Amino acid sequence: MFRAKLDSFSNYSTPIFEHLVKADANENLLDYPEDLKVLINYALQEHIKSLCFYPEINSQPLKEELAKFYGLEKENFIIGNGSDQLIQLIIQAACEKDDFIFTLYPSFTMYKITAELFDVNHSFIDITQNWEIDVEKVIKKIGQNDKIKVVFIDTPNNPTGIALEYEKLKLIAESFPERLIIIDNAYGEYCDIDYLDLVLKNKNVILLKTFSKIGFAGIRCGYGIANEKIIENLHKVKPPYNVNTLTQQIAITVLENFNKLKDNIELIKSERLRMTRSLQEFYFILPSQANFISIVDEEADSIFDYLKEKKILVKKFNMGDKKLLRITLGKPKDNDIILENLISYRRGK
Amino acid sequence: MFRAKLDSFSNYSTPIFEHLVKADANENLLDYPEDLKVLINYALQEHIKSLCFYPEINSQPLKEELAKFYGLEKENFIIGNGSDQLIQLIIQAACEKDDFIFTLYPSFTMYKITAELFDVNHSFIDITQNWEIDVEKVIKKIGQNDKIKVVFIDTPNNPTGIALEYEKLKLIAESFPERLIIIDNAYGEYCDIDYLDLVLKNKNVILLKTFSKIGFAGIRCGYGIANEKIIENLHKVKPPYNVNTLTQQIAITVLENFNKLKDNIELIKSERLRMTRSLQEFYFILPSQANFISIVDEEADSIFDYLKEKKILVKKFNMGDKKLLRITLGKPKDNDIILENLISYRRGK
Repeated sequence: MFRAKLDSFSNYSTPIFEHLVKADANENLLDYPEDLKVLINYALQEHIKSLCFYPEINSQPLKEELAKFYGLEKENFIIGNGSDQLIQLIIQAACEKDDFIFTLYPSFTMYKITAELFDVNHSFIDITQNWEIDVEKVIKKIGQNDKIKVVFIDTPNNPTGIALEYEKLKLIAESFPERLIIIDNAYGEYCDIDYLDLVLKNKNVILLKTFSKIGFAGIRCGYGIANEKIIENLHKVKPPYNVNTLTQQIAITVLENFNKLKDNIELIKSERLRMTRSLQEFYFILPSQANFISIVDEEADSIFDYLKEKKILVKKFNMGDKKLLRITLGKPKDNDIILENLISYRRGK
Repeated sequence: MFRAKLDSFSNYSTPIFEHLVKADANENLLDYPEDLKVLINYALQEHIKSLCFYPEINSQPLKEELAKFYGLEKENFIIGNGSDQLIQLIIQAACEKDDFIFTLYPSFTMYKITAELFDVNHSFIDITQNWEIDVEKVIKKIGQNDKIKVVFIDTPNNPTGIALEYEKLKLIAESFPERLIIIDNAYGEYCDIDYLDLVLKNKNVILLKTFSKIGFAGIRCGYGIANEKIIENLHKVKPPYNVNTLTQQIAITVLENFNKLKDNIELIKSERLRMTRSLQEFYFILPSQANFISIVDEEADSIFDYLKEKKILVKKFNMGDKKLLRITLGKPKDNDIILENLISYRRGK
């Protein structure tokens, strides 16, 4: 009754256990500023009576707000039910069966999972040896395979947190004007590099952004920024009414009041520095530009178990002979608990 | 840069114009009962602080509430970002490229649109001649094509409003135990026939339901009910976190207080009777079991234009030599405006 390949598929899920500190999913768990909360509450109340209507079919009101926010046109935006949906639409729009996508390894897992679902193959380069992206190697590998239709580069990368230099990404984008280059900038607010110019200067680049990492994972809202021809094509495969009314209203409220989130973002960045400095004599910490830090350690499994016993939930990655723990930065008091336990783990050995 | 077939695709949109009466999208536009509105407002306020977290990955809290509501297990449910998403997941899970889906013609357009997107073909039987479903013909046609993997029957049908008899649907379901039979019951609350038993007695049946037609189109929430093996397979292709936190909370609140919606549903049903009786001496009205009535009329285009001039928005369908106007039932005063104008159109001729 179902496709044979489903036998090898499983429902995507992430391990979860009872915890005191949640540092596994790269949410921003700092409290919202009171005045922002009031405005969101007001927006929700205002729109209860309009829940009987379908939402705007292509999220035009939110696009208009984004256009203002970025100083672009609304035709430069597409809105998704999370950027997960945009990843899917990009693959659907660009790839025939048996085509390829290209990613870094490791990178955000949804690229590969989505490609598999659509019978699209996956090519990648392994960055686990020195955690650096060899751009020449990337360009060579993409150049050798005509069937690579979409290149996904998450920068800052998940799970390493490392950001790719602007010039390197520019080189990739310019090397393949006929292929879609996706800059997944989910952690962009925590990163010093601004890639938006690459969208404006290239007709093959899509910048993906999300509200999930800046405190609004629960609304499921991602967006893509690109030239209007790309956006038009993506809309051809977008399901109608894909973003609900309340999500659109909250996203609009957040954009209108973005300055109110700045303290939360800055605090995470300063916590990143503090945690990195405090931990680096004990662990190999990757240079993160995201709202998490990642530890590469042979003992990642036992560190994970140690933290688990202390009810600290982090995320563990096994990649061949390399193991990594990704730790979301949260409230300073929660970061302190993580810090203390990571140090006591090492000292106890 | 994009698939060649996209050239023939366009962004799904529905014509809209400035209107006084909105009767085009089968929303339920009656005011919510005050006490339900208060409860929804409370649920939203309660969950603002948890918007920083991702929603439950597979909507378990909502599934638990649905299980209570239907007296089933939570393993019998899958939740979608609208039932549009569930239509997509069903096709993704069951169809290889070049397989077929089967539908009635006319029926809800998203079946065909979604199939095309996934390179899946479309087989159908035409019901426009006498607006009756010849079940023997349906069974024969499905039986002749092994590549038909999914049969979509919307009952009540959109746009006719006609419901298929339980026994006829049972016969279809039992004839093809190895194919998925989808009963799209989006308008179920307005219909006298209950198909739930077909899910319980057959291992190939999925019942699709939605909150959209009972007053909550803006939250985008649909669900599928089926045996747990089917549900498990659909979850393998479901994107994680596909339903946001606030949608889940509103859906839960609506289910907990479903009795508060009953008056709105009953009013629409009695308005259906009133409108049908008042119009049938002027028009050929199909026997609807949904929250709309449909008029089959050669002059549909000019009736549409006449209503448009009066700022009444309805939906028009052209099917070969048959033309149909689908008119959503709304507040009695709005129905009165439609009635008056439909009669004056006819009298004016």
